[in-house]
Amino acid sequence: MNADTRPIVGLMLGDVTGIGAEIATKMLAAQEARGIARTLLIGDARHLALGCRESGAQLETHAVASVDEIDWARGGFPLLDLGNLDPARFPRAEVSPDAGRVAGATLKVMTDLALAGKLDAVCFAPLNKAALHRGGWNYHDEHQMFAAWTQHRGYYSEMNVIPEFSTFRVTSHISLRKALDLVTPERIEEAIRLAHRTMQSTGIAAPRIGVAALNPHGGENGLFGDEEIRIIRPTVEKARATGIDCTGPLPSDTIFLRARDGYFDAVVMMYHDQGQIATKLLGFQKGVTVSAGMKAVYTTPAHGTAFDIVGKGRADPGAMTAAFRIAAKLGAAAAGRLRAS
Amino acid sequence: MNADTRPIVGLMLGDVTGIGAEIATKMLAAQEARGIARTLLIGDARHLALGCRESGAQLETHAVASVDEIDWARGGFPLLDLGNLDPARFPRAEVSPDAGRVAGATLKVMTDLALAGKLDAVCFAPLNKAALHRGGWNYHDEHQMFAAWTQHRGYYSEMNVIPEFSTFRVTSHISLRKALDLVTPERIEEAIRLAHRTMQSTGIAAPRIGVAALNPHGGENGLFGDEEIRIIRPTVEKARATGIDCTGPLPSDTIFLRARDGYFDAVVMMYHDQGQIATKLLGFQKGVTVSAGMKAVYTTPAHGTAFDIVGKGRADPGAMTAAFRIAAKLGAAAAGRLRAS
Repeated sequence: MNADTRPIVGLMLGDVTGIGAEIATKMLAAQEARGIARTLLIGDARHLALGCRESGAQLETHAVASVDEIDWARGGFPLLDLGNLDPARFPRAEVSPDAGRVAGATLKVMTDLALAGKLDAVCFAPLNKAALHRGGWNYHDEHQMFAAWTQHRGYYSEMNVIPEFSTFRVTSHISLRKALDLVTPERIEEAIRLAHRTMQSTGIAAPRIGVAALNPHGGENGLFGDEEIRIIRPTVEKARATGIDCTGPLPSDTIFLRARDGYFDAVVMMYHDQGQIATKLLGFQKGVTVSAGMKAVYTTPAHGTAFDIVGKGRADPGAMTAAFRIAAKLGAAAAGRLRAS
Repeated sequence: MNADTRPIVGLMLGDVTGIGAEIATKMLAAQEARGIARTLLIGDARHLALGCRESGAQLETHAVASVDEIDWARGGFPLLDLGNLDPARFPRAEVSPDAGRVAGATLKVMTDLALAGKLDAVCFAPLNKAALHRGGWNYHDEHQMFAAWTQHRGYYSEMNVIPEFSTFRVTSHISLRKALDLVTPERIEEAIRLAHRTMQSTGIAAPRIGVAALNPHGGENGLFGDEEIRIIRPTVEKARATGIDCTGPLPSDTIFLRARDGYFDAVVMMYHDQGQIATKLLGFQKGVTVSAGMKAVYTTPAHGTAFDIVGKGRADPGAMTAAFRIAAKLGAAAAGRLRAS
């Protein structure tokens, strides 16, 4: 009998006040991701039961006390029941600091499992950022939280995946004025390298990477700013010389047209709104958010807890499924590197 | 007999190397703009003849020596023949500094006519910016050129019109670093006021104006920059207090979704790429560019000279026609103000 080489993806049901458990159970019932990963549910059996009621999914699950004791040949989904979340104690469709506290605690358990090599990737249904913050997890965003938990030093990036392309960020949640000071050769190089190896992990052997300019018209040959000449172009050329297929700097009002039309697999953007304006217009809500460049892999749907449709059974599991698929791909690549080393 | 109150729009055929004369003559042959304006062709009869050959349009025209001698009751289109452009002397579909020089000279004639009250608006087919520059018209863009010619002092703005909404700019062709220093209460207020009165001139009695934030997430309550708190919000509130329907600051990665979905007639953007990323993804090339806020009104298609299809008869006159319609509307409003004063 061959060993099961599918990556192990930990799946967390999201903030209990939202649609997370509904879309996660819909996805599992559809069995779409079955072939590409071993799925370990992590959370609370009562939250899972709530999700099944809301989605109408019938799932076969069995409780496990640790990852090591899981018999992956057995049918159904193993559940690591943390017993930390009784849905009866929480409101639906409103911000709950306590729900945010529990969501963070569950993700912390999953992070520790990932760092211990027990999970190859962490996939979670939508969180509520305000709840997380008010629940005591005081970080600018979940990426910063994950970076702290994984004791990450240096560069990492939120990665945004839409069907047309993925984006990587030289700077992110910081004022535009401070962002300008962080547009450095070092950070641009890190972003290009991260885009290259992450896109490779998703299965593209030679990813085509577009690098955005900072200034209007790409600086118009220095007339509207010289960061393109001094900083971005030399860095792109340096990366190209190492064999990375990167192009730029390209004006930010045309690079996303080219990416949309299939010329790039990834775009490296200099500041938050540059990419976010584009991806939101192209259907960001159907996309996936990845915390890229850390010791653990995290993916989640780009959409939120969708309070307006909670409990109605109408939530679309499309982005959740896309997030799981990317977790499986990135997890498989991470596991492969681990085995190779 | 009633006086003809339609505005007088001067129409210029664009850079001779491009598709300008083809789309302008197609538009005139379709007679679409006939009811809303009196059209005066300004340029060279030989350029016009070239356009008719390329478009297949049959136009009835007659030469006039000045605007004052035009008999608007007569059929066909009057042509002020400057005799400055023999198409036989120019290449097609390549940058020609001499063609740029003539294009600028023709626009200068039209500007002087507008300043003398002989034209209510100037509408021009696509220029070639490189040709214009190499032809001796040394300006950052055509708007700066028009501002110089009209001896404009203070704020003006490039206005970009797509079917969904229009944009107005607090800053434009300048480095992002310098743009940050120009995000001032004064400029924001000017942009909001210009948006308000220009949209009114296009026929919207109470235009709904969205004002973009500068920082990611609109500054996240000061966490990612405080320009929203210090500068933008107070300015928006001040403008609202004067009766302008403006809303903001709104994060720049959601304001364009809302404008696209019909919630705003105009968006005031803080820097060039903020709006240009959005409008280019939504179909900028079918849109119209307006030089707004000066003594003369200028409109032109947002697309360029389209060297790849020159002379093939395939060029689409849609944006040219849209540009003419806006010229007629803004020209009528300007003429109305003139008559009222």
